[in-house]
Amino acid sequence: MKYLTAASRLLRHSSRNLSDLGSNLQFFCSIRPSSSCLSYPSLRSYERFIQDDCFHRKFTLKNICFGGSGVGILHSLARFQSDGIRTHHRNLASTASIPERNKSFATINSDDISYFNKVLGGRGVVQDEEKLDDANTDWMRKYKGSSKLMLQPRTTQEVSQILDYCNSRCLAVVPQGGNTSLVGGSIPVYDEVIINVGSMNNILSFDKVSGILVCEAGCILENLMSFLDNEGYIMPLDLGAKGSCQIGGNISTNAGGLRLLRYGSLHGSVLGLEVVLANGTVLDMLGTLRKDNTGYDLKHLFIGSEGSLGIVTKVSILTPPKLPSVNLAFLACEDYLSCQKILVEAKTKLGEILSAFEFLDINAMDLVLKQLDGLRDPLPSSKHNFYVLIETTGSMESHDKEKLEAFLAQAIESGLLTDGVVAQDINQASSFWRIREGVPEALLKEGAVYKYDLSLPPEKIYDLVEEMRQRLGTAANVVAYGHLGDGNLHLNISTPQYDDNILAKIEPFVYEWTSKQRGSISAEHGIGLMKANKLHYSNSAETVQVMAAIKKVLDPSGILNPYKVLPTSVLSQS
Amino acid sequence: MKYLTAASRLLRHSSRNLSDLGSNLQFFCSIRPSSSCLSYPSLRSYERFIQDDCFHRKFTLKNICFGGSGVGILHSLARFQSDGIRTHHRNLASTASIPERNKSFATINSDDISYFNKVLGGRGVVQDEEKLDDANTDWMRKYKGSSKLMLQPRTTQEVSQILDYCNSRCLAVVPQGGNTSLVGGSIPVYDEVIINVGSMNNILSFDKVSGILVCEAGCILENLMSFLDNEGYIMPLDLGAKGSCQIGGNISTNAGGLRLLRYGSLHGSVLGLEVVLANGTVLDMLGTLRKDNTGYDLKHLFIGSEGSLGIVTKVSILTPPKLPSVNLAFLACEDYLSCQKILVEAKTKLGEILSAFEFLDINAMDLVLKQLDGLRDPLPSSKHNFYVLIETTGSMESHDKEKLEAFLAQAIESGLLTDGVVAQDINQASSFWRIREGVPEALLKEGAVYKYDLSLPPEKIYDLVEEMRQRLGTAANVVAYGHLGDGNLHLNISTPQYDDNILAKIEPFVYEWTSKQRGSISAEHGIGLMKANKLHYSNSAETVQVMAAIKKVLDPSGILNPYKVLPTSVLSQS
Repeated sequence: MKYLTAASRLLRHSSRNLSDLGSNLQFFCSIRPSSSCLSYPSLRSYERFIQDDCFHRKFTLKNICFGGSGVGILHSLARFQSDGIRTHHRNLASTASIPERNKSFATINSDDISYFNKVLGGRGVVQDEEKLDDANTDWMRKYKGSSKLMLQPRTTQEVSQILDYCNSRCLAVVPQGGNTSLVGGSIPVYDEVIINVGSMNNILSFDKVSGILVCEAGCILENLMSFLDNEGYIMPLDLGAKGSCQIGGNISTNAGGLRLLRYGSLHGSVLGLEVVLANGTVLDMLGTLRKDNTGYDLKHLFIGSEGSLGIVTKVSILTPPKLPSVNLAFLACEDYLSCQKILVEAKTKLGEILSAFEFLDINAMDLVLKQLDGLRDPLPSSKHNFYVLIETTGSMESHDKEKLEAFLAQAIESGLLTDGVVAQDINQASSFWRIREGVPEALLKEGAVYKYDLSLPPEKIYDLVEEMRQRLGTAANVVAYGHLGDGNLHLNISTPQYDDNILAKIEPFVYEWTSKQRGSISAEHGIGLMKANKLHYSNSAETVQVMAAIKKVLDPSGILNPYKVLPTSVLSQS
Repeated sequence: MKYLTAASRLLRHSSRNLSDLGSNLQFFCSIRPSSSCLSYPSLRSYERFIQDDCFHRKFTLKNICFGGSGVGILHSLARFQSDGIRTHHRNLASTASIPERNKSFATINSDDISYFNKVLGGRGVVQDEEKLDDANTDWMRKYKGSSKLMLQPRTTQEVSQILDYCNSRCLAVVPQGGNTSLVGGSIPVYDEVIINVGSMNNILSFDKVSGILVCEAGCILENLMSFLDNEGYIMPLDLGAKGSCQIGGNISTNAGGLRLLRYGSLHGSVLGLEVVLANGTVLDMLGTLRKDNTGYDLKHLFIGSEGSLGIVTKVSILTPPKLPSVNLAFLACEDYLSCQKILVEAKTKLGEILSAFEFLDINAMDLVLKQLDGLRDPLPSSKHNFYVLIETTGSMESHDKEKLEAFLAQAIESGLLTDGVVAQDINQASSFWRIREGVPEALLKEGAVYKYDLSLPPEKIYDLVEEMRQRLGTAANVVAYGHLGDGNLHLNISTPQYDDNILAKIEPFVYEWTSKQRGSISAEHGIGLMKANKLHYSNSAETVQVMAAIKKVLDPSGILNPYKVLPTSVLSQS
């Protein structure tokens, strides 16, 4: 039963389609990719992996290792035997240096419970152990808190009353939405009160003219997508976790995802927020305007600050219209420079219809074709050093196809492309995406894998890959793929088995190299608990000091999501 | 000579093409539209107005009145006689309630001058009266400071040393770029030291693959545009003041402009900033990454805070590729609802190629045709209640035309459009734009005009216009036009002569109405000195308090751009 519960939790996260398989479940894995590798494509392929391989084919995993974000971060998250699920944590303690509990925080007592029962009218005060177990455990099953209380407010007013009270009592809190954080950002570290906003899930308004949606923070991303689909619009972001993650969490973590190349970041799409500060003050910044230059635009402070400055309760967001035509090309280049040139050409020639620009190198391609059943090389006549996927999305199918074909013909003629094919139907398109999205799965099947999710200036991306190859020699297979259009590299290092010596050659080198190039050590997933002490790799000391000063202004007692985002050392100084 | 100097200053601002006319200048006007009305189209039309009518035709203005943003704000900025330029300020003192000088600020002494000479190596320490006169005077010639010192640093280090010193001496400063603020944001109010960053005008790097430009804050927008044009890219913003305004100022004021509908706000485009804080600390946030989730994204605090939190010294910005095909349609609708429906249809059917969506009502159209020479009704067969301009920009001419024509045919068939025409060449396109952009000019020729630049939910926009008509009856002509695609209304009220009773019927009603609809009283131009005490119309008291608290953290002595953005009352409380 314990195993089934664990499996159910995983199922809920991994695929809603699996959730009715219930008692047939025999083999399953609690593998989640490490926080430093996950993105929409890889998550989707994990879901498929779990669904196809682990479940249907009763695949037994023996050597699932993840390179994480810190020195010595490598662990096998799960190993399965045919008799059920056994979770095996190797080196789990080393995954992050967890700071000591802040002694200034109070602990919950019966008066507190009475107060919360009064505020919430007797519902939404959760002390049930099984429910708390879920809420205390992160999606990767890497971190586990020990909170004794989860509150489920239904209104902003309730959130405000709760925070006001917690602030005055110095009770630490952790805001929680879908609890899909990949950096331990949404679980308590110790006994923080969990404030789960999932019950605040109403769509408040939608303006069909402007495409502006206003909703509560607890709306699940996929529900918003379904709602908008009927209105002829789409959400400006799309994530693998869309079935679980909530818009308030998306905004608090500045979620990226597949649509960023086309629709930009949430700093551009989010038009307004309602936020409750640590002391219960409700900041009503819930505007629905594209243009508003009246004072400091404070909402941006709450986009990406991971609930450590305030709890997002309502959201106003600009949504793009839904367009009917989608095309996909699978292309080959001989060198990385050509990939970059093709990107420039695509931005000009495909311009307004370009919606994705992904790449993988020959090592990634070889691995996918070797490890994944049923996949064929779309360009079988010869091997190529680099492969590029270009997706277009537009309002008229015939135009988009014509543009894409003209672009490809010219690119082949000019020698930038050595080969290429356009998907003729949705099945072929899926099989092309399956190659790109299948890389993480293929890596897992190959052996141990050390994973990094980095943002780098595009011209530097492959330099790191080549330096890493030189550094590691024949001991490891260095595999590169990612969102080239966004400058986002997924760097993966594959070895037959986990090896401390390999890790020591990778870290901190990879972070230092990224830092030197002014890259980001966390392109999409944030800092959370996992990387709080690594913030300096992507931020100057002065910048971190200002972050801490702003935290001090908005949350003087530090009760909001403690131990996360900012290094404890900086917070204690400020 | 005095008149010529004043005229030259104006020429510099109004049109670079005019700047070589020099001594031929006899008649010129220092009219600038009031801060509450100006936007790119109106500015362009003013430039044309000045160029064509005032200069070439020696037009004499007698009754140029501007409704401003506050009660009692109405003044004739300039009146011209054939014997030269005479500036006539009526009620100028009432244009804003200027707070008293903050007594805690020191005044400049000779030791200060010595120090600055040392820091700047003997150059860029300006005490010349004529130069200071320019820098003390705002673009509208509405405000005039009395600074005795302008500093022109060339490096970030110099800015840092200057601010460090000013902060320790409690010398107030005003950051200045192109000095094109329309709300008195870029001039000293009293004797603040002017820090003009115009000498920091180097382009530092441009990545042709990612389209990411890094440059110094003093780069003139138009120079950046020219640079990018050669690289096959464009700036994501375009403003009428582009020949004078600087990118640092654009970012500090979160400039909007014509390209916002397509490319979004600067919060989406700006990837990184270098900023010097009041105490001289250099915040290096000059990343060039599209994805970076490592801590609080502090750069957004400096976008739109009008130099009151720090001085922007370097900028990293994502630029879109330049696309070759531009089309323009001039369309007619019978009611406002149809305009909104057409916008929805355009967003879906034209989708990715839509680049502007403007509207004007019949009152605006009638006025333009009446007052502007050489303009013809593009749809002469009958009058219509509303006119809409739709511009498309795309990568393939034939596709864009086909899309536009199919869209128009369907819209006419469905009855949303009653008439329409697509420009067949660039001259016809210019004449269509001239109608839309000519409205401010036609209003000026008609008589007194009260002008407001508001953001409102699109469905509410015309409600305000109709309510205003009811309110004013036959005493005034209420004219509406604007950027419907952005929800930005230019509300103009025209009367034969200025009338206090009319103004009393408009204000504060228009602000209260806007506030009630959660609109913005300053869609594009910011707050500056002019609207600091009107911030509450578009912000809750709690939000303004947090703004003040953040100001206090970043600029404890309040030396940066004092008297601007935040109400003095709030600052003194915090």
